Amino acid sequence: MIYIHTPTDGDVWLDRFQKALPDHEIAAFPQPVDESNVTILMTWRPPEGLFVRFPALRHVFALGAGIDRFLTRPDLPAHVQLYRLTDAGMAQQMIEYVLFGVLRFQRNMDGYLRQQREVLWRPLPQRAAADVRISVLGMGELGAQVAQTLVRLGYPVTGWSRTPKAIDNVPCAHGVSQLDDLLRNTDVLVCLLPATPETHQLLDESRLTLLPAGAAIINAGRGDLIDLDAMLALLDSGHLQGAQLDVFPEEPLPDNHRAWQHPAVFITPHVAANTLIEPSVAQIAARIKALQVGEVTEGLVNRDRSY
Amino acid sequence: MIYIHTPTDGDVWLDRFQKALPDHEIAAFPQPVDESNVTILMTWRPPEGLFVRFPALRHVFALGAGIDRFLTRPDLPAHVQLYRLTDAGMAQQMIEYVLFGVLRFQRNMDGYLRQQREVLWRPLPQRAAADVRISVLGMGELGAQVAQTLVRLGYPVTGWSRTPKAIDNVPCAHGVSQLDDLLRNTDVLVCLLPATPETHQLLDESRLTLLPAGAAIINAGRGDLIDLDAMLALLDSGHLQGAQLDVFPEEPLPDNHRAWQHPAVFITPHVAANTLIEPSVAQIAARIKALQVGEVTEGLVNRDRSY
Repeated sequence: MIYIHTPTDGDVWLDRFQKALPDHEIAAFPQPVDESNVTILMTWRPPEGLFVRFPALRHVFALGAGIDRFLTRPDLPAHVQLYRLTDAGMAQQMIEYVLFGVLRFQRNMDGYLRQQREVLWRPLPQRAAADVRISVLGMGELGAQVAQTLVRLGYPVTGWSRTPKAIDNVPCAHGVSQLDDLLRNTDVLVCLLPATPETHQLLDESRLTLLPAGAAIINAGRGDLIDLDAMLALLDSGHLQGAQLDVFPEEPLPDNHRAWQHPAVFITPHVAANTLIEPSVAQIAARIKALQVGEVTEGLVNRDRSY
Repeated sequence: MIYIHTPTDGDVWLDRFQKALPDHEIAAFPQPVDESNVTILMTWRPPEGLFVRFPALRHVFALGAGIDRFLTRPDLPAHVQLYRLTDAGMAQQMIEYVLFGVLRFQRNMDGYLRQQREVLWRPLPQRAAADVRISVLGMGELGAQVAQTLVRLGYPVTGWSRTPKAIDNVPCAHGVSQLDDLLRNTDVLVCLLPATPETHQLLDESRLTLLPAGAAIINAGRGDLIDLDAMLALLDSGHLQGAQLDVFPEEPLPDNHRAWQHPAVFITPHVAANTLIEPSVAQIAARIKALQVGEVTEGLVNRDRSY
């Protein structure tokens, strides 16, 4: 049977999955469940010890795209297959979030907001889209769609990922060896990488310093990609124009963290791309049906490479 | 000969036009000029009495898209042909400006900014692009491209103009009789209309009140399209979510105007779509060459309809 364990909206997920998978027996926390019969678990923010309660567990469907917090769990047996959501309505949201940040930096909207507070009517220097070089780190489902949309809107975009990728209309660099040169030629850095041992603090002080004066950063990947203190220091000095941050090393960002007060930092509370129930249920239900007939399904996490 | 009269950058315009039109004699204010020989005037913010100085004047090229301040000038003889810039790099800028506003309202970025000031980590309700109905008033070169871009990004968009228009992928309403119903079904109202006697205060108190609760307004057309006091009252009451305003009845917006201080108003100093020298010179030079061989050129203003 299928068990759903989420911190909120368990009844909503249950209702939708029962409609999408009418032939399955499904229960949702906090309902009681015959633990020995659970073969499929759908979960987000699973509490410690959840996985070991189900001896017959075969498949875990994470109700989100980032599964780094599943991979570090000793209670998730190696033989259990872990799936993550791929797109499922998140790419559209991520496009919106990144585009807002790009436009905000390009058109100096923050400067106009400051001028408004000072009752100051003064046009500021304006950059053409064609002069704003954007680098998108992380060219998975979300990154590729973000990059392609920015290209269509007239921005020069380069993608970057760990391994070589071929994305229509987006030139791509890859590997750590090509990253430094890319950063030197980046006006807006868009971070959409997953959290893996290889991406941890990838943007450390030395790499952040490579960004040209006036560059800006959008991070909607994971908080530990960037050395936050080093980035704030570069914002303090004025070397960087600004940062739009949706993710942090610790979430919620602690109340006493100085990023909250930084005039060049715009903070959003991990909302760039929310899990949407409807498309997520449709995607997972299709994958469960595919599994039943032995078809390979998308979204299976390679636990060695961590995504 | 050709005379250039602009408040700033006269030497830059002169240099570019001399390169683009090497067979023409061209001078630029404040250079002396043989006024009796001037047949073509290129100007922006022409001072009172400028036009009558040139008895042989045949063509005036406005160095901008909005020419309302030319039409009310008694010193511009009726037989002189007036041209305005059409697109010339302005559509791209207008797309950026409007898109920023749409994303800001849709994704409640203002709310997150307020929460940041209060050190508050709290996700806010999120609307899908498909649920944000956008109406674009004014379907000229700029409006049509803005509307089409918004459609490609997933928003339901309706265009509106004085007369019927057929725009690819954008359903269009027209005429005052269809405006009220459109406003009742608009979540973000984008105003890109020219200033004409017919558009003056088109969005008066009674029409603004038709917008549904939570609607937002972006005005990058002309300041006198909207009853600013009525709009501010609807923002005060919370009926409207916000306004992003680039144009005002009086510009610069007077220091003591209460719009400066309104928390739901974002003010930019008429910078949504600046005149860009390179594409403007190319467009006007091409039109002058077309005129010489008797071809009809785009951008000729119909002074009866005011655009």
